[in-house]
Amino acid sequence: MVDADNKIKIEKIKGFRDHYPEDMEIRNSIFTEITETAEDFGFKRIDFPSLEYLDLYKLKSGSELVSQTFSFVDKGGREVTLIPEATPSTVRLLTARKDLPKPVKWYSFPKVWRYEEPQEGRFREHYQFNADLFGIDSAKVDAELIGLATNILDNLGLSGIYEININDRNLLEYILNDLNINDVNNAFLIIDKFRKISRESFIEMFRKLDANDENINKIIDLLSEKLDMDSLSKKLKKLLNNYKNIDDRIKRIQETFEYISYYTKSSINFDFSVVRGLSYYTGIVFEAFDVAGKLRAILGGGRYNNLASLLSGDDIPAIGFAMGDAVIELLLKRQNLWERNIRKASYYVCVLNDVNSEYPITIAQKIRKTNKIASIDFTGRKLPAQLKAAMDYDYSIIIGNDEIKNNSVSIKNMKDGDQKILSFDDFIKSL
Amino acid sequence: MVDADNKIKIEKIKGFRDHYPEDMEIRNSIFTEITETAEDFGFKRIDFPSLEYLDLYKLKSGSELVSQTFSFVDKGGREVTLIPEATPSTVRLLTARKDLPKPVKWYSFPKVWRYEEPQEGRFREHYQFNADLFGIDSAKVDAELIGLATNILDNLGLSGIYEININDRNLLEYILNDLNINDVNNAFLIIDKFRKISRESFIEMFRKLDANDENINKIIDLLSEKLDMDSLSKKLKKLLNNYKNIDDRIKRIQETFEYISYYTKSSINFDFSVVRGLSYYTGIVFEAFDVAGKLRAILGGGRYNNLASLLSGDDIPAIGFAMGDAVIELLLKRQNLWERNIRKASYYVCVLNDVNSEYPITIAQKIRKTNKIASIDFTGRKLPAQLKAAMDYDYSIIIGNDEIKNNSVSIKNMKDGDQKILSFDDFIKSL
Repeated sequence: MVDADNKIKIEKIKGFRDHYPEDMEIRNSIFTEITETAEDFGFKRIDFPSLEYLDLYKLKSGSELVSQTFSFVDKGGREVTLIPEATPSTVRLLTARKDLPKPVKWYSFPKVWRYEEPQEGRFREHYQFNADLFGIDSAKVDAELIGLATNILDNLGLSGIYEININDRNLLEYILNDLNINDVNNAFLIIDKFRKISRESFIEMFRKLDANDENINKIIDLLSEKLDMDSLSKKLKKLLNNYKNIDDRIKRIQETFEYISYYTKSSINFDFSVVRGLSYYTGIVFEAFDVAGKLRAILGGGRYNNLASLLSGDDIPAIGFAMGDAVIELLLKRQNLWERNIRKASYYVCVLNDVNSEYPITIAQKIRKTNKIASIDFTGRKLPAQLKAAMDYDYSIIIGNDEIKNNSVSIKNMKDGDQKILSFDDFIKSL
Repeated sequence: MVDADNKIKIEKIKGFRDHYPEDMEIRNSIFTEITETAEDFGFKRIDFPSLEYLDLYKLKSGSELVSQTFSFVDKGGREVTLIPEATPSTVRLLTARKDLPKPVKWYSFPKVWRYEEPQEGRFREHYQFNADLFGIDSAKVDAELIGLATNILDNLGLSGIYEININDRNLLEYILNDLNINDVNNAFLIIDKFRKISRESFIEMFRKLDANDENINKIIDLLSEKLDMDSLSKKLKKLLNNYKNIDDRIKRIQETFEYISYYTKSSINFDFSVVRGLSYYTGIVFEAFDVAGKLRAILGGGRYNNLASLLSGDDIPAIGFAMGDAVIELLLKRQNLWERNIRKASYYVCVLNDVNSEYPITIAQKIRKTNKIASIDFTGRKLPAQLKAAMDYDYSIIIGNDEIKNNSVSIKNMKDGDQKILSFDDFIKSL
């Protein structure tokens, strides 16, 4: 890492990102919109270490995820990992406290890390918003959690740009059993690849699970289209030997769909090809996709009722979702929505070269007291150079010895060029 | 990690912290106060990876710090580390962009990690606020950076609770040379330990640098008391063979002290025992301490004019400081200032058991649209249990079939117990 000039050149690591101010202002504004929407739903923020025992993910996350961790042995001999996802830590916090009144509604916004090949919308480090609701297993709660997800996207200006695709792993498991496919875990792994691999490979993989071609074709038919509630029932009536047995499940999904519609006007579909990669999901699973279908999932989640009991023995029903910062950034940029919403008024205080007084600081401190931005130019450079630096600010203030003598403030509106001289007191009143 | 009941029990790692909502609300409120103060000074936020090449810290941070890193070899064979501090990454971002107009004023609030023995106010993982100012080397800018540090503490309510202790490593180096001690780097390391080791060990260590006892005593005298500007000059006139040579340095410190006083009324002292552990500092160094003197440094920083040239060849003067979240938390708790400042109005929507309607969601969504908090109780439990859960909220709303029939809202102020029934429209207007 020593270059031709014999200078040490140290770059950032592949798959990681730097964020400069122009970028960070927008990110902060968007992150705030997301967390405020969660707060407005009564979700409360938690935080946990970036480093956990690797064993926490061996429990139930799935072997693909564990193989993609940034794991290592620390100086104390512990096998640890940078967290690849937030759910196991969240459940660890939940089960460590027996005094928490249920339901528990939590969100977090940690960095997570995965050692994967970087590509569009996927980095080795990203921020991931998570929301989880513990203690109730009902359609209304499933709908509330998905309603939060849709309201976050709606509040970011994405109404009509995304759709929610929902599946029920319970229902899919029932159908697979009905079609004499009993190795459900492996079937899910193959179904998860349905849209990424060729039809031939898909059939080949299902044949290895001892499925006959008639049933494989039924599965392909099932996975091939998005359904509304009516067509879901019709399709299943035709497909299954005993539709009666799943009446309750269909009713629950119907209620979930109905209740989601109270939160959003966005398109909600049933999609049997949505199974999610993580192996801890037990019921409903869902993803948000851009309707143009060009990007990876914007967010995804589902019900996971068994994870808490693995950690503590207590059965605590749970549903949650996660949204990384990378795909949403791509989508907002594509829609020209990647911009800062709120901005404090800002003042750039130009100080003429011969000024040697506390006056510019006094003015800046008064501005800051009103929770506005004041940046003093201490370079001593010529005024035009200072005014050039003031271009990004709402106002520039010029302080020379005249202003100090007269206890006045020369102020220029940088948007319309309007310029005036105010007494110090009038300026303070104007803030 | 399997306990007596044959349950897998996975704890958090030693030296790491979990944060539950009651804690996070306060932390967020305090973190926001800190970042808003920086924004009000015209500092802009940046962000960088949590993982960097270990080489970045071998450059200049000092060997003690490098030995305390969470470093490892990743799956691609890279020698990487969880970042132990923010300054090298910040300078990496600075030197990677040649187009940035100077001065550059940046802040960041990353997690940093050190493999040290945990103790009061010190964890293996903590959040650290950083502010850095690049491009100008002057007393006014030194004072602005320290002014920001004092204003952050003042805005947190700590005026009068802390003091700032300042040293100048340039000046100290000159004095050491004047006393015939030329191994300045090792002398700094010993001086850094002055308040932590016995007088005997201190003398013994300095003897190994070939210092005679007369000069060692002069150094001890110098390190033993905090000084104002007058006593600093007097002391140095008496101590040094040629005081004239440091006239300029004394003037610069004088100007710095004068300018700091324009930002804060807090006590500012000169203290030769402040040298800071990191080896990249080149000029002024400073720390904030609680005046009761019971805690570790609240924050610390200094001028480091050579780090950018090491990374890029460009000379870019720099000054910065860092403040961890642990000591400030201890101090705020001790002062009963560990509390949330701002709070949105919050509504708890109780839903009576026989209600099966979108009405509670409609009301909650209206509340959320006005950027207030609305939590719906979907448990279906009895009203008293729901009202108990509403205790932390400003208002509870009760929705039964009567309210739905009359299109009305029963609302209870949870502070004073005041209860009334409003029409739906009047309720919406009241928001």
